[in-house]
Amino acid sequence: MQGFTELIGLKPVSMKPGKFVTRVKMAKHLAQQDGFAHAGLLATMVDHTAGYAAFTLAPEDHRILTVEYKINYLKPVSGEIIECRAKVLKPGKQIMVCEAEIFSVQGRKKLLCAKALLTMASVPKGRVKSSKM
Amino acid sequence: MQGFTELIGLKPVSMKPGKFVTRVKMAKHLAQQDGFAHAGLLATMVDHTAGYAAFTLAPEDHRILTVEYKINYLKPVSGEIIECRAKVLKPGKQIMVCEAEIFSVQGRKKLLCAKALLTMASVPKGRVKSSKM
Amino acid sequence: MQGFTELIGLKPVSMKPGKFVTRVKMAKHLAQQDGFAHAGLLATMVDHTAGYAAFTLAPEDHRILTVEYKINYLKPVSGEIIECRAKVLKPGKQIMVCEAEIFSVQGRKKLLCAKALLTMASVPKGRVKSSKM
Amino acid sequence: MQGFTELIGLKPVSMKPGKFVTRVKMAKHLAQQDGFAHAGLLATMVDHTAGYAAFTLAPEDHRILTVEYKINYLKPVSGEIIECRAKVLKPGKQIMVCEAEIFSVQGRKKLLCAKALLTMASVPKGRVKSSKM
Repeated sequence: MQGFTELIGLKPVSMKPGKFVTRVKMAKHLAQQDGFAHAGLLATMVDHTAGYAAFTLAPEDHRILTVEYKINYLKPVSGEIIECRAKVLKPGKQIMVCEAEIFSVQGRKKLLCAKALLTMASVPKGRVKSSKM
Repeated sequence: MQGFTELIGLKPVSMKPGKFVTRVKMAKHLAQQDGFAHAGLLATMVDHTAGYAAFTLAPEDHRILTVEYKINYLKPVSGEIIECRAKVLKPGKQIMVCEAEIFSVQGRKKLLCAKALLTMASVPKGRVKSSKM
Repeated sequence: MQGFTELIGLKPVSMKPGKFVTRVKMAKHLAQQDGFAHAGLLATMVDHTAGYAAFTLAPEDHRILTVEYKINYLKPVSGEIIECRAKVLKPGKQIMVCEAEIFSVQGRKKLLCAKALLTMASVPKGRVKSSKM
Repeated sequence: MQGFTELIGLKPVSMKPGKFVTRVKMAKHLAQQDGFAHAGLLATMVDHTAGYAAFTLAPEDHRILTVEYKINYLKPVSGEIIECRAKVLKPGKQIMVCEAEIFSVQGRKKLLCAKALLTMASVPKGRVKSSKM
């Protein structure tokens, strides 16, 4: 169960080795003050989607943790659907580098609205702590 | 009205020229799969809090837009309260550079869990578009 | 005259609207302790090349200043030639977002070794200070 | 031997556990077109200095490799001396997160001119490749 990704309504769309695509349906509670998708929502999408792209290349008993990322916001997202496409630039036993793009989708139109570069760690399950919460 | 920051329960805590502090009370719907605060939640907090820190130094008729940021996750956040402290490193008429830190707060203990470096744009209100949504 | 880019032997290779390519011939004085191209050399290349990519889209009387960038090192560069390919992701009157890739070139082989995401400012010439040095 | 850091005249100034300070004497061949220190020179300094800060906390048989960093340029560097101060924010067996600041030093005046956030990998010596160059 992923509380936060459920809260924002994140849905997986497709998956290939080293690639992952997700979507969120835009809604008022996901907006910032001007009615566009909140920057933090887009950050959540690139983080999650790149994590799963990395996961497709990791050993079965590994988990993916986010080390860091950088995201540039290019345009406000005003489409009905927000799509995130992530791919692994450099697979590795411990470190995977990914990139992810956010598109605003309205009917057939897709507009690149944000781009991110991310570093993920691939960690054996036994070494990942969990919270009592 | 800020739909997304309301959804996550973000509260302002204190404000000084060039500085801003916010808090979120941790809850299950804000967690990732291991029960810790979701990385995207922390990204939302640094974005928002740094934006307000920049806003304290901007002309009254300006708005703050996020150009980009980079965030490093240092430790999982397991405390009851998540605190974000942001400050402006470099004020500017058009561009403000900020840093922000995320702390996990449990009783009197505060632990640094993430650090971000952010670039914000200060833009005259009339030039900010808004969405019909 | 650009002292530092001359020192490292940076050469322009090609230019199109929104795109720029440069090369450096690898040499011992450009290496780090293990004999590979120094990370700082690669950072210099992405900075410079993206700046020129942005410059191709700026008004004639503007100059490009680097606001910030993030670079991920994917593989050590061991080829004879280092190539940097930059393009503008989002042109703008004041802010241009670019990406740049570093390739290690050995004969016909080209290997992606680093990737960067950069924010540049387009500034009227008169507003750029210069140093007496 | 470090070819590139010798080329730019980088000197260590002080060292404590988790901290490192270096300096470069400004010179014409280190400048960009307006006579200020080249952004790539500053990137080289934060990379190198943070690497050594991390090295002070690593096991003796480990080496430090740069995974990635992000640097924000706040002001042009016009002082006679460029100083870089780096510290480890989060030590780790495999990953160390550091921050580094660049100061322009002129007589007794020190001005913050750039700030960086860096991710370094701590790797057993035997696993680091070297180039024949």
